[in-house]
Amino acid sequence: MTESRREGTRLRVDLRFDGTAFAGWAVQPGLRTIQDEIERALATVLRLPPLRVTVAGRTDAGVHARGQVAHVDVPADTLQALDVERLAGRLTGVLPDDIAVTSVRLAEPGFDARFSAIWRRYAYRIADHPGVVDPLRRHDVLRRLRPLDHEAMAAACPALLGLRDFAAFCKNRPGATAIRTLQRLDCARNCDGLVVVDVQADAFCHSMVRSIVGALVAVGEGRYPSTWPALIQAGGRRVPEVTVMPATGLTLEAVGYPEPPELAAQADRARALRVLSPDATTGGGAGR
Amino acid sequence: MTESRREGTRLRVDLRFDGTAFAGWAVQPGLRTIQDEIERALATVLRLPPLRVTVAGRTDAGVHARGQVAHVDVPADTLQALDVERLAGRLTGVLPDDIAVTSVRLAEPGFDARFSAIWRRYAYRIADHPGVVDPLRRHDVLRRLRPLDHEAMAAACPALLGLRDFAAFCKNRPGATAIRTLQRLDCARNCDGLVVVDVQADAFCHSMVRSIVGALVAVGEGRYPSTWPALIQAGGRRVPEVTVMPATGLTLEAVGYPEPPELAAQADRARALRVLSPDATTGGGAGR
Repeated sequence: MTESRREGTRLRVDLRFDGTAFAGWAVQPGLRTIQDEIERALATVLRLPPLRVTVAGRTDAGVHARGQVAHVDVPADTLQALDVERLAGRLTGVLPDDIAVTSVRLAEPGFDARFSAIWRRYAYRIADHPGVVDPLRRHDVLRRLRPLDHEAMAAACPALLGLRDFAAFCKNRPGATAIRTLQRLDCARNCDGLVVVDVQADAFCHSMVRSIVGALVAVGEGRYPSTWPALIQAGGRRVPEVTVMPATGLTLEAVGYPEPPELAAQADRARALRVLSPDATTGGGAGR
Repeated sequence: MTESRREGTRLRVDLRFDGTAFAGWAVQPGLRTIQDEIERALATVLRLPPLRVTVAGRTDAGVHARGQVAHVDVPADTLQALDVERLAGRLTGVLPDDIAVTSVRLAEPGFDARFSAIWRRYAYRIADHPGVVDPLRRHDVLRRLRPLDHEAMAAACPALLGLRDFAAFCKNRPGATAIRTLQRLDCARNCDGLVVVDVQADAFCHSMVRSIVGALVAVGEGRYPSTWPALIQAGGRRVPEVTVMPATGLTLEAVGYPEPPELAAQADRARALRVLSPDATTGGGAGR
């Protein structure tokens, strides 16, 4: 059996949050964090001492999630007394109203929320003129009232796809690699008139999503041609012309996992990679 | 020329708001209202003494809007100095972030935001199980975690359509009629898994939308059959079994106007109706 079975019973926990009032995912002394709220809610509902929760995407301060995935290991005897089906509602009931647990279920064998993940997908949303501003979406849509040419932004996307070194879009960590596989990068105007950048990768390094969007926005405002973001990426160094966009517009939409037979093998591969390059998957899920 | 032309120049103002922190549309001494915020923003941007704004739907405390329409008459000489195209952005810039003006334009001849309107459309949104709760939508979606049978609710809708006396769903005002034409009433589960009731009428009386939704919810929870809401309507009196749903889930989505040649005639008809029955159109736009 896998590591999780030896330690107890692993639960997969899917959650959503409005990140506005949080200092990000990870526990930080004296600050309000999502991890801390979830761990305390689990302890309350399960009547256990605090449990450690592991997450797919360690989102930054102010970043939101609609498809965050976490896991937690609970003692096997606790689970026997639990109605797992009802746990999501009970957790949501004790959590503050800017966090909700949408699902709790027994994890598949080998499942690790962080190491089994094969992709993370984010959306960045911008209201670029007064006609599309919606106060009901002010928490997860950036209001920036300068018209964007979303077609020019879309034209810049394909050249960034694939396995590349994204150091030009990442905040440096000593010794860390910024090599990632960008699986998807699109820009379009949605039915509400918002400019939406959809981006998916095996993993992201720190500030990567917000820097890529910053480069696309520079194109959308006509300051640079559509060929420019790929030139910056190829340059391999951060440049002041690329703005790291505010967290407000960024939401972790979904995390992808392989089919159950592959979960443990994927987790083993990701853990091994972590040994070779400490940042490759640690910061890798960072939703930035 | 129409009344508006004699008084100055009429502007049509489209707006959106998160009603959570407001005591409704209409100015009330000592309370925060949308009308007050808009009138003060107009005075600031136009550098005029306070102006009176007329609105299509006088929404209650806590009710939201994505398609609210208002008009304001400004002195003709003020307008000559104005760039009307840029007014929406300037107003949104001075308004608090829970109100936005999406468009300002010269009103068509005969236009009256309130009296020219031929329909108001509202949506009521409910998250009925933990899997569809989204903290980013907590301001305009009611969280009520009891599963709803949306098909049973939909089955109850057609029998309420048409010209009827909705007194059973309206808070009484002495001498007021509750006869309205319900043009549309649907219930469905949307792509986010929310139960959404769409309702459109020529006008609404006080609490009408929220009471109709309350009757549908009673059906959705299995407490009454799909034939029940129409029986209550036909009864003509309010009954305690119909809950007036909370304002949180209710949003004014759109207001309809006839083609420009009909705007003045419609306004004249609505004003004449108001003389015959003071509540018919006064409370008529009330978004409840």
